Amino acid sequence: MKQQRLLVPTLRDVPGDAEAASHRLMLRAGLIRQLSSGIYSYLPLGMKALQHIQTIVREEMDRAGAQEMLMPALHPAELWKASGRWDVYGPELMRLEDRHGREFALGATHEEVITTLVKDEIHSYKKLPVTLYQIQTKFRDERRPRFGLLRGREFLMKDAYSFDRSASGLDASYQAMYEAYVHIFTRCGLQFRAVEADSGAIGGTDTHEFMALADIGEDTIVHCPSCHYAANLEKAIGRITNEPSSLQEASSPSSVHTPGVTSIKQLSQFLAIEPTQIIKSFAVKSQGSPAIVLIRGDLEINEIKLKHVLGVQEVEMLSEAEITALGSVAGFIGPIGLTGCKLIADTSIQGMVNAVVGANTADYHLQHVHVERDLGELTYADVRNVGHGEHCIHCDTELAFARGIEVGHVFKLGTKYSESLGATFTDENGVAEPMIMGCYGIGVSRVLAAVIEQHQDERGIVWPNAIAPFNFHLLTMNVTDEHQLALSEELYTTLQRAGFTVLWDDREERPGVKFNDADLLGFPLRITIGKKANERIVECKERRSGQSYELSVDQLLPHCQSFFK
Amino acid sequence: MKQQRLLVPTLRDVPGDAEAASHRLMLRAGLIRQLSSGIYSYLPLGMKALQHIQTIVREEMDRAGAQEMLMPALHPAELWKASGRWDVYGPELMRLEDRHGREFALGATHEEVITTLVKDEIHSYKKLPVTLYQIQTKFRDERRPRFGLLRGREFLMKDAYSFDRSASGLDASYQAMYEAYVHIFTRCGLQFRAVEADSGAIGGTDTHEFMALADIGEDTIVHCPSCHYAANLEKAIGRITNEPSSLQEASSPSSVHTPGVTSIKQLSQFLAIEPTQIIKSFAVKSQGSPAIVLIRGDLEINEIKLKHVLGVQEVEMLSEAEITALGSVAGFIGPIGLTGCKLIADTSIQGMVNAVVGANTADYHLQHVHVERDLGELTYADVRNVGHGEHCIHCDTELAFARGIEVGHVFKLGTKYSESLGATFTDENGVAEPMIMGCYGIGVSRVLAAVIEQHQDERGIVWPNAIAPFNFHLLTMNVTDEHQLALSEELYTTLQRAGFTVLWDDREERPGVKFNDADLLGFPLRITIGKKANERIVECKERRSGQSYELSVDQLLPHCQSFFK
Repeated sequence: MKQQRLLVPTLRDVPGDAEAASHRLMLRAGLIRQLSSGIYSYLPLGMKALQHIQTIVREEMDRAGAQEMLMPALHPAELWKASGRWDVYGPELMRLEDRHGREFALGATHEEVITTLVKDEIHSYKKLPVTLYQIQTKFRDERRPRFGLLRGREFLMKDAYSFDRSASGLDASYQAMYEAYVHIFTRCGLQFRAVEADSGAIGGTDTHEFMALADIGEDTIVHCPSCHYAANLEKAIGRITNEPSSLQEASSPSSVHTPGVTSIKQLSQFLAIEPTQIIKSFAVKSQGSPAIVLIRGDLEINEIKLKHVLGVQEVEMLSEAEITALGSVAGFIGPIGLTGCKLIADTSIQGMVNAVVGANTADYHLQHVHVERDLGELTYADVRNVGHGEHCIHCDTELAFARGIEVGHVFKLGTKYSESLGATFTDENGVAEPMIMGCYGIGVSRVLAAVIEQHQDERGIVWPNAIAPFNFHLLTMNVTDEHQLALSEELYTTLQRAGFTVLWDDREERPGVKFNDADLLGFPLRITIGKKANERIVECKERRSGQSYELSVDQLLPHCQSFFK
Repeated sequence: MKQQRLLVPTLRDVPGDAEAASHRLMLRAGLIRQLSSGIYSYLPLGMKALQHIQTIVREEMDRAGAQEMLMPALHPAELWKASGRWDVYGPELMRLEDRHGREFALGATHEEVITTLVKDEIHSYKKLPVTLYQIQTKFRDERRPRFGLLRGREFLMKDAYSFDRSASGLDASYQAMYEAYVHIFTRCGLQFRAVEADSGAIGGTDTHEFMALADIGEDTIVHCPSCHYAANLEKAIGRITNEPSSLQEASSPSSVHTPGVTSIKQLSQFLAIEPTQIIKSFAVKSQGSPAIVLIRGDLEINEIKLKHVLGVQEVEMLSEAEITALGSVAGFIGPIGLTGCKLIADTSIQGMVNAVVGANTADYHLQHVHVERDLGELTYADVRNVGHGEHCIHCDTELAFARGIEVGHVFKLGTKYSESLGATFTDENGVAEPMIMGCYGIGVSRVLAAVIEQHQDERGIVWPNAIAPFNFHLLTMNVTDEHQLALSEELYTTLQRAGFTVLWDDREERPGVKFNDADLLGFPLRITIGKKANERIVECKERRSGQSYELSVDQLLPHCQSFFK
């Protein structure tokens, strides 16, 4: 393609509100433009990259035996009411009425539609298992759209749904998708981790998130540098070994006056001890009954784990009045002497000696607390976020932390939708059973942003070969020079005939402008045709390595073929 | 692909509400399923055919120099308000609010979005011309969705928009799209006509509709069998030569008593004359002033032409009271003796002699009317639909009529949107000018239905090679027979390695079921592996010609390669 007429509106300035590198670069390189908050148009170069990702997704999904189809964006409200999600999905689900006043949702996801379809069309075990997928536009009215394509309101998604007759069938379907995802993200050039995730309220069991590693990522990943353990922070577990206390031992807890000292930070300064020697006590309630959660002072409660332990959907903090009613004082809560409420001890306090806890009296704490000796029989549970310094439960290596962008998600749904929507099959014995489902998503447009987030430098994008909008950027230094123009035409034709894609910068612009744009657009190989055109010599520059070298025209094609092999 | 697990839910029965052949066959062959009125899911086979059409569209658009992009479905209301269409588009435009109460339209077309984008990104004549396109889901809340994919509420469309600096530039862009459309529809195997159409209220000038010929089509095409003239009925023109009257001539009009005779049919029976000897008089009003439209008795008024002639947007029929107020009587209106209203004479009455007209008196007509002699100086205009028997104005051949499905539309928009939305460019002299636009649509999903409408027989679909979901249907008569199974496996692999697509019917079904399904699904070549498998002989049947013949396995591949060349 010739650049003169191609709609690639590059920008010199970084738009002020674009926080993520990918967002800035996609705007600067003319890949996308915003139409409304979280809603973007893909310009020709962005579209090409997006199509390369779609092709990879299709090839790997097909290879895994999934069947492509296409479902509508307009969903009758009845389906979402039948599954129960019309009421619980909240304002993220966009809703509208047609000319007859019938309610519709704009598809945020397609469990309802696919389950209803499969219910109507598949009745026998003989037609199972089946995995169906589509690449389709999704609508989610995010409260806070941000980071360009990373969190948008209208976006391109690949969603797949598997239907099996048994749990082991689901395992196999799930595994096939898991492997397809590994291939897809690898081919896209992404550095990623498949992490265990919490299955949350969707009601499934196993679930993995595919996280592209990036500092801008909104999710924290905990992973083991030695074995392959990796999990989302909400799900990750680690092992803590408590060091002996530096405080002098004593035979029983004793009170210490700590006036106005209510935070862990203040307390550790006041007593000159580490936060790891303090036990934090949180007063919470769930379904009306109060509980005290004990956790080591340097660590944070993981609300999702806590809910699982309590077996509830919601947990609230107690108010000051409720804490007083329990016989304690906000800021000085502790496990000793409190009656009438459950104690939940995070495993991080197991074996702590000489610990400090709240005294349930204003301005006092207790020190010299030995957990095993002084707190009676505790119910231990893992209710914390893994902290720095924790070790892998599989291989005891110290765990590492990273930030990630969720680009994919595989999920064992089980029978939630098949039961609520009546998707059953008849087995060999004529017995009707609910189909066992899995669902599998890839944020196709988000992958594009994640690729750029990982592949860029201070000058612009550095495309992986498989995703680059064009293989080559052909730069003619002086389009009014006969030799340069003739050689450019020749190479433009030759390279395209050889199956490569070429963007020819045929603009009447200064070399500096062309070089800057070429770096910004970041195609793998730049070929510059300048003064040596009459000697049939061109300059070749690799965007990623920065290496540049002169080649004769005769050498060029073999060189390119090996470069892109 | 193997049929056992593929989601191809064929139906034996024709769904009762499906009127169009394509709709019936797409349901029966398991290509689509309805989710809601006018809203469909594409199942795997339908999806494959749809993708083949998309590939053809992309290739031809790219070849014509158009650039692919992708715009959102959610359009901020402000854009539609700026163009003035928010208010005039009516209930076909689906509307919704986001969580913050901001209004959006679901894109029914993208003139507003593309014009705003181009306005922001292109400022100089140097970047023009440019033609941008997308293949994208459109939403139009049709009052009466029908015929399956032919008139849906959510459908796939290719829309393109050209931006030029001059009218001659637009001519060239328009011509490039026109030619691309000819290639696209030809490659899709459609019988079609590019017909002149009325540019209507959109405000453009030239426009052509691409009509796939089909009896189910909602549009009437008038075309000349000799020259290449073809037009939509609303736009078509023809030539009429009036025969001399069979009534005895008289020197002046005379009254005839026609009690209760108010229709052309009654009048022609009552007087024993042809409708071609009667002049119909319609009383209409536009912008408050009345007019009488005169047209030959066998012909119909073309409202669009009439509005053009009157230079108005709306025309109404006069009420009985208004007719009385004019000094006439409903059912007996005529041109003679009426004052205070304009006469508009369709060219079909030119030269009529011995004609019959209403007498403006209850139960009376006038006969022996000679138009030239008795009606004074008339303003002639073409305000009729072309009637049967009219002749081509270019070559005088009698015009023919056909029904068509509108599959494409090319349109010279001019500056309607660039002016209302402020899309200007600066010319060589630094003067700002509005860009001159064209828009070009193809109903991608409608093309799929039109292809099936044209390519089917009583047994099922007869796919054109370029669109067929699979090249081959490989039928194994007895999947429990070792020889048949082995040979099927071998051919399945061989044909796919050779680059063909194969659906292998590996189901445990009776031969009759398999043959019927193969006819219904209608792939170009059916290969049946039966009892002669051990001799390595298969049966090959061409779906279109119905020819079948035996081939040895060695002959098969060369035969297929030449068949699909």
